[in-house]
Parts: sequence; structure tokens; C-alpha cells
Amino acid sequence: MIVHLKDNISEPQSLELAHSHKAVYFRSKNTPVLVLPSAIKVLPVALEPLTKAHWPCDSDIQLASKAYKPETREVRWGKTVVGGNSGNTVVITGPCSVESLEQIEQSASLLNELGINTLRAGAFKPRTSPYTFQGMGIEGLQLLARMREKHGFSIITEVRDATHIEQVIEYADIIQIGAKAMYDHGILRRCGKAGKPVLLKRGFGSTLQEFVQCAEFILSGGNEQVMLCERGIRTFETKTRFTLDLCGVAYLKEYTNLPVILDPSHAMGYAYGVADLARACVAMGVDGILIETHPQPRVALSDASQQLNHDEFRTLYRSLQPVAAAVNRKLV
Amino acid sequence: MIVHLKDNISEPQSLELAHSHKAVYFRSKNTPVLVLPSAIKVLPVALEPLTKAHWPCDSDIQLASKAYKPETREVRWGKTVVGGNSGNTVVITGPCSVESLEQIEQSASLLNELGINTLRAGAFKPRTSPYTFQGMGIEGLQLLARMREKHGFSIITEVRDATHIEQVIEYADIIQIGAKAMYDHGILRRCGKAGKPVLLKRGFGSTLQEFVQCAEFILSGGNEQVMLCERGIRTFETKTRFTLDLCGVAYLKEYTNLPVILDPSHAMGYAYGVADLARACVAMGVDGILIETHPQPRVALSDASQQLNHDEFRTLYRSLQPVAAAVNRKLV
Amino acid sequence: MIVHLKDNISEPQSLELAHSHKAVYFRSKNTPVLVLPSAIKVLPVALEPLTKAHWPCDSDIQLASKAYKPETREVRWGKTVVGGNSGNTVVITGPCSVESLEQIEQSASLLNELGINTLRAGAFKPRTSPYTFQGMGIEGLQLLARMREKHGFSIITEVRDATHIEQVIEYADIIQIGAKAMYDHGILRRCGKAGKPVLLKRGFGSTLQEFVQCAEFILSGGNEQVMLCERGIRTFETKTRFTLDLCGVAYLKEYTNLPVILDPSHAMGYAYGVADLARACVAMGVDGILIETHPQPRVALSDASQQLNHDEFRTLYRSLQPVAAAVNRKLV
Amino acid sequence: MIVHLKDNISEPQSLELAHSHKAVYFRSKNTPVLVLPSAIKVLPVALEPLTKAHWPCDSDIQLASKAYKPETREVRWGKTVVGGNSGNTVVITGPCSVESLEQIEQSASLLNELGINTLRAGAFKPRTSPYTFQGMGIEGLQLLARMREKHGFSIITEVRDATHIEQVIEYADIIQIGAKAMYDHGILRRCGKAGKPVLLKRGFGSTLQEFVQCAEFILSGGNEQVMLCERGIRTFETKTRFTLDLCGVAYLKEYTNLPVILDPSHAMGYAYGVADLARACVAMGVDGILIETHPQPRVALSDASQQLNHDEFRTLYRSLQPVAAAVNRKLV
Repeated sequence: MIVHLKDNISEPQSLELAHSHKAVYFRSKNTPVLVLPSAIKVLPVALEPLTKAHWPCDSDIQLASKAYKPETREVRWGKTVVGGNSGNTVVITGPCSVESLEQIEQSASLLNELGINTLRAGAFKPRTSPYTFQGMGIEGLQLLARMREKHGFSIITEVRDATHIEQVIEYADIIQIGAKAMYDHGILRRCGKAGKPVLLKRGFGSTLQEFVQCAEFILSGGNEQVMLCERGIRTFETKTRFTLDLCGVAYLKEYTNLPVILDPSHAMGYAYGVADLARACVAMGVDGILIETHPQPRVALSDASQQLNHDEFRTLYRSLQPVAAAVNRKLV
Repeated sequence: MIVHLKDNISEPQSLELAHSHKAVYFRSKNTPVLVLPSAIKVLPVALEPLTKAHWPCDSDIQLASKAYKPETREVRWGKTVVGGNSGNTVVITGPCSVESLEQIEQSASLLNELGINTLRAGAFKPRTSPYTFQGMGIEGLQLLARMREKHGFSIITEVRDATHIEQVIEYADIIQIGAKAMYDHGILRRCGKAGKPVLLKRGFGSTLQEFVQCAEFILSGGNEQVMLCERGIRTFETKTRFTLDLCGVAYLKEYTNLPVILDPSHAMGYAYGVADLARACVAMGVDGILIETHPQPRVALSDASQQLNHDEFRTLYRSLQPVAAAVNRKLV
Repeated sequence: MIVHLKDNISEPQSLELAHSHKAVYFRSKNTPVLVLPSAIKVLPVALEPLTKAHWPCDSDIQLASKAYKPETREVRWGKTVVGGNSGNTVVITGPCSVESLEQIEQSASLLNELGINTLRAGAFKPRTSPYTFQGMGIEGLQLLARMREKHGFSIITEVRDATHIEQVIEYADIIQIGAKAMYDHGILRRCGKAGKPVLLKRGFGSTLQEFVQCAEFILSGGNEQVMLCERGIRTFETKTRFTLDLCGVAYLKEYTNLPVILDPSHAMGYAYGVADLARACVAMGVDGILIETHPQPRVALSDASQQLNHDEFRTLYRSLQPVAAAVNRKLV
Repeated sequence: MIVHLKDNISEPQSLELAHSHKAVYFRSKNTPVLVLPSAIKVLPVALEPLTKAHWPCDSDIQLASKAYKPETREVRWGKTVVGGNSGNTVVITGPCSVESLEQIEQSASLLNELGINTLRAGAFKPRTSPYTFQGMGIEGLQLLARMREKHGFSIITEVRDATHIEQVIEYADIIQIGAKAMYDHGILRRCGKAGKPVLLKRGFGSTLQEFVQCAEFILSGGNEQVMLCERGIRTFETKTRFTLDLCGVAYLKEYTNLPVILDPSHAMGYAYGVADLARACVAMGVDGILIETHPQPRVALSDASQQLNHDEFRTLYRSLQPVAAAVNRKLV
């Protein structure tokens, strides 16, 4: 149950109430908010006189539920806004990994050419083998920051584990929590206090319930700028790398109030299917898509098979405009 | 390996060659065709003088492969054509099960109103419990035949098991092989001789490789009018009934020459997500979609939760036109 | 709900009652049995005076449930009994496919040497490609029948689809319904009238609920000699062919009254793991195991990688005795 | 490729060689070890004169492979040894979470009574909801340390994320990396330097390849005391919480040199199946099992449904002895 206490309830009293009701507490603008376990369906008598409004919830999807906020939350960064009444579908692109100044400048040119504002690239790569390229680390973050200064882009980059969360928070405009880190309490709790938008990727072995509950860790830390990213789940099918779960996206749109961003590149794992899937995602009316592009995919240090080259991306981007228009969305 | 023998090779000689090369034999128009195991990569010397053309294949996806025919095959029924150069996306609708004359007449009205030509409905239902409605059987087929006579529709209906395959072949314009019957050799082999289009649904636990190989049973029986239908696979996610595998659809479009029809209703299992998914499917440029509709979904005898009512379908249908146009497809 | 009518209720009256209550009817020895949909929790008033006993059920797992019969049902063939109070774990072996008289005689020697009574081998193979060995068909069944006559074995062999169900019923002592045919109503309903034990394999994409509900089709046809066979489910893991679901076996033992037979050969897909898995199965106290063996696995026409050679099987068989003893089971 | 340099190669020279060959470097006792990407199949000429021995590897499973060390590695803690020639199967038990001094003392009594030396309990719980019990944290670790001092147990406890890795390393005798943290580079790399045995749990959505490659992060950090723990994977089946992958265990035993510990409690999710599964695991000849027990499972603050009460565990433990003996293993 979500409880909005009256605005005049002090910080110490709110904390005490949270403690005595086993609730999580944060402040949403001026309003003290308590989140009690969802098993509690009736407002506790002791809270009645102190409460402005309250919402019982079906499950521990509480702050993210349409039962609490029936509209999609608005999330903003740089010149970009998604969710709310915006009708926007954001297109985010860039390489899997920052590899060099030259490479990232080529990516920047592509964004500039097409008027795209948000650049994605990874510096800390969650590779499955210790014997391959692990990302440029802090140096990669610094290259991304240079692109922001020079070109005015917003930067989205991934935190792999809690040891470098502070660096990512410092350099990124949007903090991306990778699929393999979805359950990482160290990251989730820190992001709850980060004051920046967070893109939470669904673990490829994670249910929708778990996925949204991980978003609750961030929301209940007081950070209301959370976006959900579906990037494919692991199934028995191995012709493609993962299986993009658009049925799950339909569920998220129906039951949660968080913007939904799709990542067809990681789902497919092969460049040939990305354009078709990207059009499908836009036709679903989602809030954004992430597409991996690389100036020369064949020599990419990670995810070589799934990145589009810049020509392929230009063609795709142009084809997305009429699809977005057909479902009353604007590409931004 | 696929071998086109010279047209003047006689039936008995073709059969003998098939036998001596452990090949499957059929006649495609005038051409005798042998399909040898895909492990054979070099044309056997004995066949050389008798052969017009041959295609080595990577796997036992042979007749269905783009390596053999690089264009999508054309399939026709009634006034409808899909595949080939048609640029068509067919919309097929109707109830899960035929339940009564009254019900199926109401469905017919909907099709007439929107100019839809192909009516779907099941008479033999592959229910998982013996203690629920099992379909109207032959009586259901007869009601569908009445709709064809009266309204000029083409009829697509499902064969559940080999015991009633003759009846379905007799009454249907398109034979639908259900997901649970995908591996049924009795059905597949009989459909290879049926002389009518076949819609083969992917088993929800079946890989793409197995799926297309089951289509090979029909194709190699001599029936070249085969369409593939993705209808959701079974994954760990249970908020939705199945997971529509659009990555798999991208694979089928890239590597096979068979038209692909999508069934978002069975994948989702809930009416609320069907419209969004249907738009996504159309944006992928597929050859058709199947949408379950019912005059009164709440009282449907099967699949009550996922069928759209007629108003919901009208709204959906109108919204599909601009999406189809955005990807240069025509709805038929 | 299961209803035992009084024994003196006549056949016509029973049928009429079944019709008016949308129930399935069969006769268990002298007792007329109705099975109503499980949604019915209270005995209908009209049935009260005609009823000897009744059992409400949680789901459409009814006849197979421990709620109905708390003990494992006894199933018998030849000299063998499993379930009931027998404490027996049956070991069944033989090749994947009958390939020749010579091959099957070698298998027979192995069984004779070890005192094994039940020979398994397939004649109708549910292959996924039309371009590979499809089984010897009726000729294979005849070879198996010769082994029965000569050596006194009981024969278990698989029905692939409904077109040859009569032949399998005629030749087999135990009818095996293969994983890909689990949902086949034509087979299930015919087996309900077959008067012989049936081994129903779980579809590799099928839930336990669906699996046991398919057994209900046979049981409610009046054939109470049904055994369940877990043979591995399809998961994301591809190092092994399937994933043997022993958690599911624990569920079946807890909630159903049918004997459970395990097939580690198909689950593993590689000979190297079969012995370890077989010992695990026996330690779980199951009613039997099926192990594929072949005189020369390398040249087997199907499933070459997973069949044990006869020496490997001898070693395994000897190692099973102490494991069975450790859990108070007898190998038969 | 794994390269053992000659023992007299100095630290600086080893580091330089590692750098120039993109290799990971650590010292195994006195031997400098380089691990090059597995794509390299031939010893680089520059390394030839400096090399004592080298092993090409099929995949990035290198240090953990039987190709490198054909025997299972020995791992030791307290009075316990597993792997090597020990023939031991260790039984580890205790509650899911430390909840109070009273509770953990009751668990301690159980261990003492049965002569079990290793106590498991979690202090940092990776819960999926922020609105439930999150573990006692450092206080929990201190209670576990008291049990070690008082009773002489070895303690195994879980690290949830990298923020408290130092505390877990300080207090634990065996560091358990939870399933949800399997990919956590911060944890894996720190464990590579921890100098204590590590139990790595398989992520429930992780392939065997990824699982063992995560162990490679620890091994290649120089910590050779790594054990693998299979605890169930996520599949479509929902009657049980997860699916214990014993086929996967057969793979691990065949291809890797790390001891394998099984956790049937988390796989099953329900107490009723744990005993049967535990016997199956022991019959497979694994190196150990983890069983969750609680003095009063019904009031447990986490995983209430799957923990055995102490009477159930006593019965189970006694039944394991003959099974272990049947496969020539000793319980420790």
C-alpha cells in the first residue's frame, strides 16, 4: 500500500512511521510517501489522521503501477522528454562499446547528421569471458563526456557492477543498468538517490514481475525518473540470440506507469533482423528504441554481428518516420 | 540437396532414382524433383546426365530455403493472393470455435462489413482437458461451409489429429495444422497430397529448425502451397499466455521462401494486448495476421479471454491501414 | 468432480446422466463413473440418490489425482508389476529403432543375459526431417513380435500418429505415446479403449498440468493402466539435448496416482551422462526407467549419440542394484 | 590457451608477457600462468623458450576444463575436504536467513547432533521486492561468527552485491556468490584475490558455458578454490519454483575440473520434494549438497515453503547414508 502522508508531517516523524509500519519512506516533491508491504490492503488506523491519500496494490508492483498513477510518467534529459503527454518515441543510437576517439567521433557524426540527441555506448562491458575485451572503463567515460561537450549530446552508458557506480553517475546523463545487473541491490539503491534518469534493462532470465519490482527499488529510493527496457529474454530458440518479448511490452504498457524503451539489437543478435524489429517496436507505440550502430561493425570489439553500419541505420531511420506517424507518435 | 531432373525422365525412372539415392521424390508441375539428404553436397555422378539443375543445402531446410527459391512463394485461395510480388498482408478473423449458426452468422456480418474474405473458426478443438467443450466437429465444418456458400468467404479451419483429416480437407479452403499437431506425420504427409493451401502453426515448444522441417514434409509431398504461422512460444514468462517470437519471424523472412502469417491472439492470451501486437506484426511486413474475434467474448466456449469483440476489431482494423501503408503493404 | 454411481445404475441411465451433466462416463469394473468438470465442487442434487461416493477435485487433474486415489495405481504386463505395493522399479531397454533382425536379436541377448523382461524399440519414428530414416514401420512391429514369441519378452513400442494406432495396439504389450504425440486426441481416445497398458511421454514443451490432463483422456476412456514418462523438457540450455525435470517428478509423485517412468537417455542426448542420471532416477524411488541401448551405437540409424553400448549398460545395470536397495526398491 | 611459464620468469617479465599477448596472468604456487584467448591454438613463437607447458582449449572454459586438469580439484575448509581423491560428499545445512540468535542456535544444535561441520545462512538477502525482509546484514554475519567460535563450524554465507563483499570475505569461511550475482564482475574479481573457497551459484537464466566462464574470472584471478553450485534453472514449468538441471550436472562432471555442489531446496521451492531430490543428487556422485532447514519453517522470514523442519532433515540425513554408500561416496 502506498500512503501519501500530509505535507506537514516532519522528516523525523515520517521516518518513525516508516519504521513502525515496516514501510519504505521517501519524499516525492513535498509529500512524504510510505510504501507498506502490498499484503496490507486496509490503511492502518494509526495512519488515518496523518494521511492525505492511499492506494492499496495487488502485488509489490506499487509505485510503478497504473493503480497508483494511471498515466505514463514523464522522464526528461537534455532536450528530450518521453512519457507524459509528449507522444514522443526517442531514438537512441551509438556503438556497443567506446573503442577509440576516432570511432566515437564517427558515431557522433551520424547522430548530428540525423538530428539525434542521445548517444549510447558502453565503457564497462559485462562480458561473459575474462579473456576478451572488457571495455575502456573510465577512459571510455571521458571520451563520452568529450562528445557531450563538443556536440551537445546526452549520454547514456551502462553500469556493470557496484564498484564503478559513482563514476557512471558522474559522467552519464542517463544511467543504464544492464540486464546482468538488474538484480544488483548496490546499484539499484544507489540509483534511487542518483537524481538522474535511469534506464533499467530486463534480465534475460527475469519475469516481468521481478523486472518491475527491481524498478521499485529505485522509485522507492526517491528517484522517480525510471524507464524500463525490454531487450530480449532467453528461450529455447537459438537461431536468434534472444527473443524480444513484445507480449511482455503489451503487459508493461497496460499495467505500469513507466516509459518503455525497446532494444531490438540485443534481442536479435544479428543485424539482418534489426530494422524489421525496430519498425515493429515503433508501431507498438513505445517510448523509445535503442539501436546499436558502428562505423565498421565487422571490426567491432564486442557484439560485432548485431550492430548496423551507418548506411543501414540511415535507411532504417528514414523508414521509421512513417511508421511513427501511422500510430500518432513523433520520433525525437 | 535438391535435384531437378530433366522433364523427360519418366515417373518409373524417377521413382527408381529416388529409391537408389534415398531421396524423396515429387513432381513440381512437369519437373521431377528429388530431395536427397542435405549431408550430400556434391551431385552424385550417376545423376549428372539426368539433371537440369541442383541446389546443395545447409540443413534439411531445403525446399523452404531461400537457397532454393530466393523469392517468397505465392499462395492463392479464393480472391486472395499472398507472397510472390503481391505486397499483400491478409487479415483473417473469426471466432476460436464455431459454436452455433447464430454466432457464426454474426461473425460473417463483421467480415462482410469490413470486406474481409477469409473466415477462421475451429470445429475440432485441441483442448487440454477431456472435461471441457471439444468443438462441434463435423457439424461445425458444415456450418462453415454454409457461410462459404452464402457469403463467398474462404474458410480456414484446424485439423487436430489424423482421424478427421479427410473431413477437414473436404470442407476447408485452407487447412490449418494446429500448434499441438505440428509434428503429426499422419497429417503432414496427407497434406502433402491435399492440393489445397496449408497453414502450419509452429508448436509452442518447437525450434524454428523443426518448424520449417515440418513444412518440408508437406512440400516434399508435392504440395507447394504452404504458409508458416508463428503463434507464440512457451517461455518462463507467465503474465502473458505465450511469447510472440518476432525475432524468429525475422529469421523466417531472411532464410525461408514461405509466406509468414502471425497470430497475436494466441500469443498474448489477453484481448488488451492484441491490437498493439497486430500493429507490430503488420509493421514487420508479414504476409498476414490471424485475429480471434467473437460477438460476445465473455460467453465464448473456448479462449474467452483473448478474443476481441467486434467493436474492438473494427477499431483495430482501421488502425492497421496506415501502418500497412507505412511499410508499403496492402491489407487484403 | 468424480462421481461413483451405484453399481445397479444401468448403462443407458448412466449415459443419460453423463449427457445431462456434461460429464465423461466410463465403467470401472462394475462401477459406473461420471467425471464432471472440476469447476463443480458440490454434488448436483439430482445425482445424490444415485451416488455411492464422490470426490471434488482442484483442477481437471481428477482421475489421476491423489485426492481420488491416494496410492499409486498398479499396472501389470507379462511377468511385471509396477506401482501398488510392489516396491518395484522396472528397467526397460533396447534400441531407439528396430533396424534389422540381427540387431534386435543382439538386443534380445542382452535382455536375456541380465534377466530383463521388457524390450523397447521403435518402428514408427517421429523424425523431424523427411530426408532421414523414418523407421521400419509394420515390418519393425513384426520383428518385435518375433522377439516376444521366441524369448517371452513384453514389447513396448511407440505410436507416432493416429494412422497406425491399430497396428501398434495389435503388436505391443505396452503402447508408448511419444512426446511429440502427447496431445494427439486420436491416439489418446483410442488408447482409452485399448485394454492394454499405456506409457504416456511428456511433451518437451508441455507443462505438468497438461501432461497429466492428457493422461485423463485415457483414464476417462476407461483404461486405468496408464504410466507417466518424464523424458526431459526443452529449456534454454543446449549443452545437453533436453533437461530432465526431476522437480517435476517430485510433483508427480506427490500429487498423482500414476506410476512414473523416467527416460534419462532422451533427456541427456549423450551417452556419457546416462548412467549418472539413471542412478539419480532410481534413488528418487520411481517406478521404472527406460534406457536406450544398441549393439553398435555409432552406426545406429537414429539417436546414435545417446545409446549405450551393451558393455556400458551391463556396468550401469549392476550399479543400479545397490542404489535401488538403498531406497528400498527392487529392480525388475 | 593456458601457458605455464618457467618458474624462474620474474613477476615484471610475466606481466609484460601478459600485456603483449592480451593474456590474463596469475601465479599458481610458484608457476607463472598466462591465459590467452582460446582462439589461439598454437603457442606463440615468442613464448616458446619461456614455456614449461601449455594447453590449447576449445572455448573460454580453460582453467576449469578437464583438458587442463583431468581430475576434480580439491577444495578444503575447516575439517572438510571435497574433490581430489577424497570421495567425499559434503552435506551443508542451515536456514535461508539468519533471523535471530535463538533461531541460529537451534540450527547449530541440529548440526552438532548430526556431526555436520558447515553451517549455511544468509545475511544479505537478494530479495526481489524492496518491501520485504532484506536480511540482517552485518549483524547477521556477526551472529554466524559467534556460531563458528562457539561450535567450531565453518560458515558459508552469500554476497549479494559488491558493496558488502569485504564484510563477507572477512566473516565467511566459504564465500557464496548468489545466483542473481553470478555475472557480477566486482564480486568475481574480488573473489579471485580472496584466498578463501568460493561457491559460485549458477544464475537461473544462465547457460552452463556462461556459468563456468564466470568461474574462470575467479580462477584467473589466482583463486583456485572454486566450487560450482547448480540450484535450478528457470523454465516454463511453474508447478515447481525452478528446474534442477541434473543433465547439466552430468555435463559439468564430464567437462570441468571443479567440485559440484547441488542445492535441491531452491530448485524445488517446496519442502515436499527436497528429500527425493537430495537422494537423487547424492546418487549422482556429486561433491556436496546444500539443504535449507529452519527450526520452524512456517514462520521463516524468507523461503518459508521450501525449508525442511529439523525432524524432516534428520530423516533425510539418515536416508542419505546408504545412497552415498551405494555409489562409493562418504558423507562428511
